[in-house]
Amino acid sequence: MRLGRVAMLGIGLVNGSLALALRERDAVGEIVACARRQRTRERALARGLCDRAVADPAEAVREAELVVLGVPPAAMGPVAAAMRPGLTADAVVTDVGSVKAQIVHDVVPHLPQPALFVPGHPVAGTEHSGPDAAFSTLFEGRRVILTPIEDTDPDAVRKVRRLWELVGAQVDLMTPEHHDRVLAITSHLPHLIAYTIVGTVADLERQTQSEVFKYAAGGFTDFTRIAASDPVMWRDVFLSNREAVLEMLGRFTEDLVRLQRAIRWGDGDTLFELFSRTRRIRRAVIRAGQAYDRLPVPPDRAADNGNGEEDEPTTRADG
Amino acid sequence: MRLGRVAMLGIGLVNGSLALALRERDAVGEIVACARRQRTRERALARGLCDRAVADPAEAVREAELVVLGVPPAAMGPVAAAMRPGLTADAVVTDVGSVKAQIVHDVVPHLPQPALFVPGHPVAGTEHSGPDAAFSTLFEGRRVILTPIEDTDPDAVRKVRRLWELVGAQVDLMTPEHHDRVLAITSHLPHLIAYTIVGTVADLERQTQSEVFKYAAGGFTDFTRIAASDPVMWRDVFLSNREAVLEMLGRFTEDLVRLQRAIRWGDGDTLFELFSRTRRIRRAVIRAGQAYDRLPVPPDRAADNGNGEEDEPTTRADG
Repeated sequence: MRLGRVAMLGIGLVNGSLALALRERDAVGEIVACARRQRTRERALARGLCDRAVADPAEAVREAELVVLGVPPAAMGPVAAAMRPGLTADAVVTDVGSVKAQIVHDVVPHLPQPALFVPGHPVAGTEHSGPDAAFSTLFEGRRVILTPIEDTDPDAVRKVRRLWELVGAQVDLMTPEHHDRVLAITSHLPHLIAYTIVGTVADLERQTQSEVFKYAAGGFTDFTRIAASDPVMWRDVFLSNREAVLEMLGRFTEDLVRLQRAIRWGDGDTLFELFSRTRRIRRAVIRAGQAYDRLPVPPDRAADNGNGEEDEPTTRADG
Repeated sequence: MRLGRVAMLGIGLVNGSLALALRERDAVGEIVACARRQRTRERALARGLCDRAVADPAEAVREAELVVLGVPPAAMGPVAAAMRPGLTADAVVTDVGSVKAQIVHDVVPHLPQPALFVPGHPVAGTEHSGPDAAFSTLFEGRRVILTPIEDTDPDAVRKVRRLWELVGAQVDLMTPEHHDRVLAITSHLPHLIAYTIVGTVADLERQTQSEVFKYAAGGFTDFTRIAASDPVMWRDVFLSNREAVLEMLGRFTEDLVRLQRAIRWGDGDTLFELFSRTRRIRRAVIRAGQAYDRLPVPPDRAADNGNGEEDEPTTRADG
C-alpha cells in the first residue's frame, strides 16, 4: 500500500502516531496536517509528523486521497463542514473518534460523497495528548473498529482497513450503535468512574489529600492515570454517547449499592462470591490478549494486595 | 541489622517477598514459615522463602525474636491466639494487614506483652497472591505505615522500622484509625469500584462480554487487574474497615450522581471542569513519587485517550 497525499485534520496523539507509523513504512507521499493552534502546528512539524501544517481544513484536504479526522467528537461536524470546499470528489474520509453514531450523524451531511466516509475508532491511546505524545508503535497489536453504514463503498472500507493493518492493528467491523454500546462499558464507564474517584479525592481536606498522594500505590494510581486523559475529548464522548453511558452507569450503580449493603450488613459471602468471579474475568481478558500477566510483577505496576493463605490457586497458570 | 529466628505466619505475596528480601541481604538467621495448607508450605520451601515450614502457629514462633503476621485480616486474631503457647516473652510481633484498628482490636488480647506488638502495613503488592507471587524487590521505594498504640514499646517500633528500611521501604507512623481512613480512599474504595465494574461486565450477556474482552484496552484492563486481587483478603478488608469505606463510598456516590446528571442534561461545562481538575491530581501523584510518567508510553500500559487539538499543554512537563 502506497498512498499519495494524506490530510490529518487534528494532529494529536492518534493522528500523530498514525503519521509516524505511515512514514516509518514509507507508505505515504505527503502528509498535510491541520491544526487550529499555531503551537500544535509547530510541534507537529518539529517532530516530523507532517510535511506541511496549515490552519485551514479546506486547504489541508486539497488533492488528498485520504482524509483522517482526528479532532474531539464535537468538533468533527464543524471540521467536516470547513474542509468541504477543498475536498476532491474521490477522497476517502475516515475518523478516529471514540464514539461513532453521533459522529456519523454530524459528519455525513457535510460530505459530497457520504459513501466514501468510513467511520473508525482505533482502541489505543495513552493518558497523554497532543503531537508530543505521538509514537509510531501505538497501534501495534491493538484493535481498530470500523463502523461502515449501509451505503458505504466497500472499496473505501478496504482502503481504510489496509491502512490500519499496515500499522500493525487488527480491524473489526460493526455498526456504529453496537460500537457505542460496547465501548460504553469497556472504555467510557471506566473513564467516568476514574474521573469521579479522583475528583472525590480532590475535594478532601488538604491534609488528607497529601497523604492520599503518598499512599496512592495502594490502587489509586491507576485511576489517576486514566483520569489524566484529555478533558475536551472526554467531555465530548460522554455527551455524544449519552444513552449507552447512562444505561451502563445504571447497571454499575445498582451493583455498587448491592456491595454497599453487603458491607454495611457484614455479608461476607456476597463479597467473597463476587471477588472470586471477577478474578476469573481477569483471566478471560488475558486470554483475549488484552492484558499481559507477569509474575513477579515489577513494583511500579503494583496494586496493594496484601497477602494471606490464598484460597484460590496462584495465578501463575494464567501466564 | 541481623536477626536470629523470624517466624512468618502466612507465607504469601507479602511475607514471602519480605522473606526473600531479608535472605538476599543475609539479615536473618532462620525463617520459619507457618501455613495451614500443605501445598503452600511445599511451594514456600521450594522457592526458598523459608528454612522450615510448619502447620502449627505455636511451633512456628518458638524461639523467634520477630513474628510477622501475614494472614487475611479476619484470621489475625485466631492465629495470634493459636501461636501464644509458643511465643517467647521478649518476641516482637508485627503484622502486614491492610486494615489496622480492627486487627489491633483482635490481636492485642491474645498477646502476653501487648507493648511488643507493632501493627504495620506495607503499601505494596500485586494482583497475584500466594508464595509463587513473592519477589524480593516488592518493597523497594514503597511506603510502610506503622500504627503503634499508646503503650507500644519504642524499641519494638525501632526494630520493625529498621526491618522495613532494610528492604528498601520508607516508614511512616500514624494512628490505626487515621491509617484506616486514608487507606479507605487510596486503596479500599478503588478496589471496591474495580470489583463492581468487573462484576457488572460479568453479568452482561455472553456476546457483549466476549467483545468487552477484545476491546478491554480502552480502559477496562486496569480494572480487571485490580479486581483480580485476593478475594479472601479483600472480603476481610471491607468487613474490617466498614465505617471508613462506607463514608468514602458515600462521597464517591454523590459525586457520581452529579456527573450522571451532567451527562443526562448535556452540561459540558461541569464535565470539562472536573476532567481538568483530575488531570492536575495526576501530576501531584507523580510529584509524590507514586507514579512514573513516560512519554511515549508503551502500548501495553495504554488507556484509550483518542486525540484532538488539546486545550491543555501536553504533559511532557511532568516527566
